Amino acid sequence: MDNKIIANLKALGIDMIDAAQSGHPGIVLGAAPLIYTIYAKYMNVSTVDPSWVSRDRFVMSAGHGSALLYATLYMAGFNISMDDLKHFRRAGYKSPGHPEYGMTPGVDMSTGPLGQGFASAVGMALGEKILESKFTISDGKPLIDYDVYVLCGDGDLMEGISYEAASLAGTLNLDNLVVLYDSNNISLDGDTSNTFTENVLDRFKALGWHTEKVINCTVEDIDKAIKNAKKSSKPSLIEVKTIIGNGSLNAGSNTVHGKCLTKEDINLVKRKLNINPENFFVDEAAMKAFKDQIKSRTDRKYELFMRRYNDFKENAKEDTLKEFEFFINNKTLNIGKIDYNLDPNLKEATRVTNGTIMKQIAMYIPNFIGGSADLSSSTNTYLKDMSDIKDNHYSGKNIWFGVREHAMGAILNGLALTGFKPFGSTFLTFSDYLKPAIRLSSLMNLPVNYIFTHDSINIGPDGPTHQPIEHLASLRSIPNLKVFRPADSNEIIGSWNCMLNMKGPNSLVLSRQDVRTLASTYADYVQYGAYPVRKEKEKLHGIIIATGTEVHTALLIAEQLYKENKIDLRVISMPCQELFLKQNERYRYSLIPKNVRTFVIEAGSSFGWYRFATDERFVITLDNFGISGTKGEVETYLKFTFEDIKERIKNLF
Amino acid sequence: MDNKIIANLKALGIDMIDAAQSGHPGIVLGAAPLIYTIYAKYMNVSTVDPSWVSRDRFVMSAGHGSALLYATLYMAGFNISMDDLKHFRRAGYKSPGHPEYGMTPGVDMSTGPLGQGFASAVGMALGEKILESKFTISDGKPLIDYDVYVLCGDGDLMEGISYEAASLAGTLNLDNLVVLYDSNNISLDGDTSNTFTENVLDRFKALGWHTEKVINCTVEDIDKAIKNAKKSSKPSLIEVKTIIGNGSLNAGSNTVHGKCLTKEDINLVKRKLNINPENFFVDEAAMKAFKDQIKSRTDRKYELFMRRYNDFKENAKEDTLKEFEFFINNKTLNIGKIDYNLDPNLKEATRVTNGTIMKQIAMYIPNFIGGSADLSSSTNTYLKDMSDIKDNHYSGKNIWFGVREHAMGAILNGLALTGFKPFGSTFLTFSDYLKPAIRLSSLMNLPVNYIFTHDSINIGPDGPTHQPIEHLASLRSIPNLKVFRPADSNEIIGSWNCMLNMKGPNSLVLSRQDVRTLASTYADYVQYGAYPVRKEKEKLHGIIIATGTEVHTALLIAEQLYKENKIDLRVISMPCQELFLKQNERYRYSLIPKNVRTFVIEAGSSFGWYRFATDERFVITLDNFGISGTKGEVETYLKFTFEDIKERIKNLF
Repeated sequence: MDNKIIANLKALGIDMIDAAQSGHPGIVLGAAPLIYTIYAKYMNVSTVDPSWVSRDRFVMSAGHGSALLYATLYMAGFNISMDDLKHFRRAGYKSPGHPEYGMTPGVDMSTGPLGQGFASAVGMALGEKILESKFTISDGKPLIDYDVYVLCGDGDLMEGISYEAASLAGTLNLDNLVVLYDSNNISLDGDTSNTFTENVLDRFKALGWHTEKVINCTVEDIDKAIKNAKKSSKPSLIEVKTIIGNGSLNAGSNTVHGKCLTKEDINLVKRKLNINPENFFVDEAAMKAFKDQIKSRTDRKYELFMRRYNDFKENAKEDTLKEFEFFINNKTLNIGKIDYNLDPNLKEATRVTNGTIMKQIAMYIPNFIGGSADLSSSTNTYLKDMSDIKDNHYSGKNIWFGVREHAMGAILNGLALTGFKPFGSTFLTFSDYLKPAIRLSSLMNLPVNYIFTHDSINIGPDGPTHQPIEHLASLRSIPNLKVFRPADSNEIIGSWNCMLNMKGPNSLVLSRQDVRTLASTYADYVQYGAYPVRKEKEKLHGIIIATGTEVHTALLIAEQLYKENKIDLRVISMPCQELFLKQNERYRYSLIPKNVRTFVIEAGSSFGWYRFATDERFVITLDNFGISGTKGEVETYLKFTFEDIKERIKNLF
Repeated sequence: MDNKIIANLKALGIDMIDAAQSGHPGIVLGAAPLIYTIYAKYMNVSTVDPSWVSRDRFVMSAGHGSALLYATLYMAGFNISMDDLKHFRRAGYKSPGHPEYGMTPGVDMSTGPLGQGFASAVGMALGEKILESKFTISDGKPLIDYDVYVLCGDGDLMEGISYEAASLAGTLNLDNLVVLYDSNNISLDGDTSNTFTENVLDRFKALGWHTEKVINCTVEDIDKAIKNAKKSSKPSLIEVKTIIGNGSLNAGSNTVHGKCLTKEDINLVKRKLNINPENFFVDEAAMKAFKDQIKSRTDRKYELFMRRYNDFKENAKEDTLKEFEFFINNKTLNIGKIDYNLDPNLKEATRVTNGTIMKQIAMYIPNFIGGSADLSSSTNTYLKDMSDIKDNHYSGKNIWFGVREHAMGAILNGLALTGFKPFGSTFLTFSDYLKPAIRLSSLMNLPVNYIFTHDSINIGPDGPTHQPIEHLASLRSIPNLKVFRPADSNEIIGSWNCMLNMKGPNSLVLSRQDVRTLASTYADYVQYGAYPVRKEKEKLHGIIIATGTEVHTALLIAEQLYKENKIDLRVISMPCQELFLKQNERYRYSLIPKNVRTFVIEAGSSFGWYRFATDERFVITLDNFGISGTKGEVETYLKFTFEDIKERIKNLF
């Protein structure tokens, strides 16, 4: 029966791709036995409660295998219709071109960009370890207990992000992670002998993983390997030798990777599979057998969990129950405002103030955890007096990501998918290293908080490699991501109020240099994205929009120009452009009326600022790389000193 | 004497950091014996001709070790003054905070962002192999023959980019690459036992590298290990166990990584080193001994090369001499225009036309080589009928990068630093994966050409992970990078004319969908960044600016609105915003006069377009993610159909 079900998965998959005239038949025909074995023999999932908190997770890291995944979920009994399969890759159906989180029951994350799924699965496995250690029932057993399965290909393993995540998974000993590697010696352009001759299993052994190799791609051998993997006390990689496009005319070659099969080839494949050649044929007996296997195993597990959950609800302390609530309702729970009780006369870098604030958040919000890509000593995001997450000690708050920005981003995504409100920090200039992961946070609209410090040329002597220029523009242009650049402690508090209570991912951009807390900033106004921090005294001559540390510059310039030249300026702080653009026209135009001279000051790219400024002379920004030197030397070089800026503004009146 | 010189390098390094009150003493005190052994015993360099084409290359991948590097180059006799050392990290000196290409004689590339140096060194090593196989003298021996040395730390090896590059270096068997790994068990935030417990040497063995381990960090043992490495027929990693901040009060801890030593500690260190405690003391005997070691070895090598070079000039064919010229004068050689002789009635995707064009460029330009991150079948950048670069067959034109976008970018940088005009391709949406490398191309202003295809939502069914939105904005906001988005074959030719003849890095952005060659586009006008492709008939009512495939949309809309509504529009194609912004005001304002309704159409983020458009209603762009569906379904979902765009424009008259 195993083979009958696998044959049916393959047939459905190639029919879907044929209907769409688009998709990837190679993996459907090559890896069907892998996904089948996982779902039929191991995955503890509930088709009626697909977001069951203690379900096993499956990540199709080779996201181009979406047809295979949907065929599997359909035959397993998830709420996906035959109509969805028939409209593969069409708008309005549960079968998008690559798996998309929130679109299809049973799909645990969006994948497609290679390596991301693998790395986020490490985050999911870490998340499980934390939950497992955090919540226990009356007999001391864990409430939450599940495994994370991944299907990946050569491409996933060639990507640096998967290495970074695998190395950390080894260090943290995540034995709840089982990766099946669809090893077919072929990538899109051709044979991997051209590109990928390393010994993958030896590499993973060196990373502290358990490894298995399956030479014959049979359910029996795959099953045996998974069994061994689950026994091991390490994360596991199972290399399964497969034939890409198995059974088709182009089997074993790269042409079958992403090209639809001809009708002739489809018929040939089906004949070889000994399956009814009818389009979208489903063998009802096979489907029932598949469902039964999953159901008979999983129903028991689900009931067991429900019993444990009831025990938990009856016996756990109120605080613990509340804590659990944070994980369950992560996306909807209103955090409200936290009272941070800061000294109103602070004069310190916003990265320092933020460190103080984050510590208080961590005390208040149990699912708030995170770390840094080995820069916490500089980004100030280490939660002091709270413990570290380590191998066999997963109940801490601080994650040590190592110098692995990209994996950090993906792991944060995995944690967010597991009910956390995670954060990760590095320098703003290195936000580039994790951009693909930030894009996925944004696509999935996950509550991930990226903390980027050392936010401008003002860092000085480290030089242009470390001085951000284009990074604010680069981040702000990502849909769904909110970018906060607060001017002082009030605005940091306001930013966190938004970040913790609004949907979607955030990035918080902080300074290295000291600033004072301003008298005219307000935490409560950050939610509007922008607001006046200085009103004109008599008649509105002009407006300066600024963000972050440049708000201080703008205020001082406005004061001086009023005293010295009777130029009467309004100063607007815009800690979050995205939120400002969401306000109604009335608010936007009352704040920044048309036909008033409007300047922008930001120590970063002009990109994104022309929409507010009168014309290009009014955009006082930086579109060139800096140099290594003192803060003053760099500002002079880039013509961005206080006097330069003041002169430019004065000369436009 | 070895130890005396090393002591002096250390003393100079910590004095520099003390003078700057900024820098990284940990690596200076820890890794001085490593860099010393490389320069004293191996590096074939000429201090009088620092850009000698056949010199050994040294890459300080741990770029925060800049003080150590400058101290070494100073004592080795490069043209760096004591004044430069005394003004470490100050503007106007040859001693910037991190090594910068072009700023300091003897510095072969800009480093600082971790992993980039390691990965670009792989490109340099590959470049040498190609040159070595390409140019021979009368006795059959190679004209060019050198090695590439790297000094890297734990951070470099934790980064995914270094893994990607190392895996490819193993596949290509680059035996001219020797990496010294400063292994001190400490990274910025603390002990690597928290983050990095893998067996690094076993990992590199699995990647096909030769490995060595040096337990006692002595010149003798390091020397022995390098000797073995050079004998090996594989790339080599030498792990040298060191003590970070060796000799200081905080030796062996992360506090010494990036914090200046106290005066007391400096004195202590110098006492232990048994060196004159005077500030910036130089032991003349030690300096002479260091210089002599280098000179006695290197002078011979330099002479030998000059003899070979004369032989080459006398005996090589004229074509070969011309070829060599391309590598030597890569940055200044005027390529001129190539006659591509294309069918004027083409109707095909610009990625396809570009493939044809690139093949002709490759026939004409010998240093034009490159490849794809495993997407050449889709990006069409494979140079057909030209051979592949493989292990022991380095004279080809096509590089197989594998699914390693990030390493591809860094390797292209290494190749450009070796005299190539390299290209690399992937989908536009995956440009995110290599952004840190693109930034370094831009910082070093290298002639690297990035080819990004599948440039908009119009790719359709692959869905939002594969549909670029913010990527054009992200690329255009990088200083120095020119982004070309040509409308048709004429503009592709024009783009290449610019890309091959102008300085600095480029990115060429191409469509998946078919377009016709337009009658009103001109290759020669691309150099101005923008030009009219439709002039108003009688009276200028408005202007549409468009790029790429949207130029076709704009032209058709202009035609229809003129016929149907007597709206008389000018259409401007803007294949390169950066070049347009470099034109004088007269050109810019004659093309886009103020006070004329100006629209922008681009299937990408609005970022960067407001500077041209009348106001926000005139910016017809995309600031949201797409969906999986047919081209029509995606356009409908995003309100970006032809009719949507036409209506929006019509309604503003």
